[in-house]
Amino acid sequence: MECVAPPAGLEQAGSDMAILGKQIYKLTHSKTYVDLITRLYNDSEGLTKTQASAVRHLYEDYAKTKNISAKLSYEMDLCFNKAYTDWLNAKQADDFSLFRDSFAKVIAYTRQSVLLRDEQKETVYDTLLDDYEKGGSIKQLDGFFDALKARIIPLVRQIVKEGKPIRSDFMNRPVPIPQQEAFSRYLLELEGLDRDKLVLMTTEHPFTDHYGDVDVRVTTHYYEENFISNIFSTLHEGGHALFMQNEPKALYDDHAADRMTSAMHECISRFFENVVGRSEEFITFIMPKLRELSGHTFDDVTAKELFEAVNIATPSLIRMEADELTYGLHILVRYELEKAFVNGEITVDEIPALWKEKYKAYLGVDVPSDALGCLQDVHWTGSYGYFPSYALGNAYGAQILRTMEKDFDVYAAMGRGDLRQIGDWLTEHVFSIASLSTPDEWIRAITGEAFNVNYYLDYLEEKFKKLYALQ
Amino acid sequence: MECVAPPAGLEQAGSDMAILGKQIYKLTHSKTYVDLITRLYNDSEGLTKTQASAVRHLYEDYAKTKNISAKLSYEMDLCFNKAYTDWLNAKQADDFSLFRDSFAKVIAYTRQSVLLRDEQKETVYDTLLDDYEKGGSIKQLDGFFDALKARIIPLVRQIVKEGKPIRSDFMNRPVPIPQQEAFSRYLLELEGLDRDKLVLMTTEHPFTDHYGDVDVRVTTHYYEENFISNIFSTLHEGGHALFMQNEPKALYDDHAADRMTSAMHECISRFFENVVGRSEEFITFIMPKLRELSGHTFDDVTAKELFEAVNIATPSLIRMEADELTYGLHILVRYELEKAFVNGEITVDEIPALWKEKYKAYLGVDVPSDALGCLQDVHWTGSYGYFPSYALGNAYGAQILRTMEKDFDVYAAMGRGDLRQIGDWLTEHVFSIASLSTPDEWIRAITGEAFNVNYYLDYLEEKFKKLYALQ
Repeated sequence: MECVAPPAGLEQAGSDMAILGKQIYKLTHSKTYVDLITRLYNDSEGLTKTQASAVRHLYEDYAKTKNISAKLSYEMDLCFNKAYTDWLNAKQADDFSLFRDSFAKVIAYTRQSVLLRDEQKETVYDTLLDDYEKGGSIKQLDGFFDALKARIIPLVRQIVKEGKPIRSDFMNRPVPIPQQEAFSRYLLELEGLDRDKLVLMTTEHPFTDHYGDVDVRVTTHYYEENFISNIFSTLHEGGHALFMQNEPKALYDDHAADRMTSAMHECISRFFENVVGRSEEFITFIMPKLRELSGHTFDDVTAKELFEAVNIATPSLIRMEADELTYGLHILVRYELEKAFVNGEITVDEIPALWKEKYKAYLGVDVPSDALGCLQDVHWTGSYGYFPSYALGNAYGAQILRTMEKDFDVYAAMGRGDLRQIGDWLTEHVFSIASLSTPDEWIRAITGEAFNVNYYLDYLEEKFKKLYALQ
Repeated sequence: MECVAPPAGLEQAGSDMAILGKQIYKLTHSKTYVDLITRLYNDSEGLTKTQASAVRHLYEDYAKTKNISAKLSYEMDLCFNKAYTDWLNAKQADDFSLFRDSFAKVIAYTRQSVLLRDEQKETVYDTLLDDYEKGGSIKQLDGFFDALKARIIPLVRQIVKEGKPIRSDFMNRPVPIPQQEAFSRYLLELEGLDRDKLVLMTTEHPFTDHYGDVDVRVTTHYYEENFISNIFSTLHEGGHALFMQNEPKALYDDHAADRMTSAMHECISRFFENVVGRSEEFITFIMPKLRELSGHTFDDVTAKELFEAVNIATPSLIRMEADELTYGLHILVRYELEKAFVNGEITVDEIPALWKEKYKAYLGVDVPSDALGCLQDVHWTGSYGYFPSYALGNAYGAQILRTMEKDFDVYAAMGRGDLRQIGDWLTEHVFSIASLSTPDEWIRAITGEAFNVNYYLDYLEEKFKKLYALQ
């Protein structure tokens, strides 16, 4: 549907998917299935560790929805579908009022469905955070975002005020698409992906998906005038692909793979995109190949200039276009708002104004419209508690980097283009246990200590102070 | 699996297909399904014509295998799978004895499974012919092939002896693959295919498949030095695609589409490949575009020279590489052998020698080995009675052409590149009723008379006598 199906075939493919969806619902709500999964969950003796893990995930999937009646489930589907359409219209018309009612209903249904569960965390939003990032809570994330606020906001202000100017005139020079594709393949090869298990295709909105470890599909989108941006998109998707290709075979065999949290997956993709891809060492390494494959379009650009240009940090309006440094502040705004409206502390009508207030306060920008403000992301048409994953992933990565550096010189490896050394380390220490661990267990097992946001903040400060020649 | 999946993913995709296959078996052998389909088949009152047709086909699918026990079915699967492997080994080693035992067993199982049916035709081979080409029989095909033999064999001999020499030095000039792809898209566009409902991809062995009429997938294979061959492969697959895109929507809605015989489908693909594609009129029309897109690789070749070169008729060893004229003789050999061994008139041990004898007698060629002889095709590892479809499809096309010519000047349309006029006519008269008709009903409804092989033989004689400047 995303890469191959012709436009006229999409509706039919959608109906086919709906038929399969109904079958999945039927199977996972059948008495046989529920009895089996409940029994195995309550008595896992005799199961291997991976089997027990698979059972636990299946049981938890079931437990989350078991008290939701078919009628409520149907009403929710209708409401969420309508919310998506309303949101799209509201965004296009730049008119929050078109989304308002649906938004309020989606929040109400979400609260209701959480409150029906047997297991409750302290607040509804805590439960939702725990859904996406096992063990996550308001308490943990308040600490995380407070620290981020305290150190990143001043740094961004300092860059705006005193940062040295950075050249970026070359960023949108056109490169023919076949050359871009060749460069993408080169990058995926560098990342150590097994090409016998890999597909590279194009789509509108890049993503990576897989069927087990043997068939991993990376997609990207080439724009002639966005060659440099495609480099980072490819490195990012390649990071996801590396994770998918290198979970232990035993986990795939027991259907226990692919159970890490989104933040854990994003941690790896962003590691390759930002920590590796936006490092001076790696940029210097790929520069000759980049010059050659782009037909010498960048012959007047030094590696240092390219490194600086791909790291320009600017407060802006749109999360999806944000740089490595300011990205977390975009998430901060969303986190604070979600927490408040999900837990009933503010109403939906207050959201547009609060959004503008927070963007002004944290990023120093004036939000001119809701389309460029609180209507920009699709997420609030149905999922709350997911946004923090984006920021957590970055933070995990910095902590893992510091541990990796105890074993070998990571930046020297980047400078040699030896991403395989990094991938091998990740396979051994990070991929091997991800699906069997909560984020907390995972970070402790890898780094020997609890998650600590300061690694991330140190990393950002060090990188961006140096880049902008600040004290 | 054919176009996208990476090499390492194929085995897993195969297992997934096997799981789906088992589910299909279960569903179509469940009591509910069988009762329903039997009741509707026996009492179709209240069903629309298309619904009744869908039911009839589903019932017949069921009836063919209903007396085959699960045990026999399993044994047959094992045997047929082993036969495929044995055949592959035998062909590679050029050693018929490696295939002999499996071959004999497959024939025996095929006979057994036919003899178990409630409905029997005169002989086992008659039943198999009827499976592939409803209404087909030895009687009908003996007449068809006798006529073909009587007129084509002398014509081929005459060409070999007296035909004028034809220039073909340019046939394998290399053309870069992007240009070949652009030319393929141009041809599909000319054929009148709706690009919103079309996919063009590459694969090892070209085929066309579809999901309803809204998602039709053409595949091809580009070889730098086989540009001209790709033109005809694309026109051929485009013909299949046109049929798939233009069956009436109502038939798709009632799952009554796609029930024409293979010969009826091949009739259309070969019509576009041979009747249109290998006509002087069409070649002349596409010549400027062909020159341009190939980077002027063919500037020294006239349209007439290209027309003649793509129609060179030569007795040869391999069916899949045979030309329009001699193709039927390759099928003739297979027909005569199949008929004899399926009905127990000869043993498998006699096949290699008889193959050589018949190739010498009908095509005048010496078969140097079984790999280039009776081991060349995959079909005999499990399907008998299918080969005649290839020849019948060509013959249907010639008869349809003569009817079409009563409505408009078909060759003039080709000369204008106006294949849409041809496609529109086919949609109205040919595609509209195909799935609802037996081949006999279909040909009568289109042409107003019974199938008559002489249209085909006249067409071939006229075309090739002129081409080779014969009397």
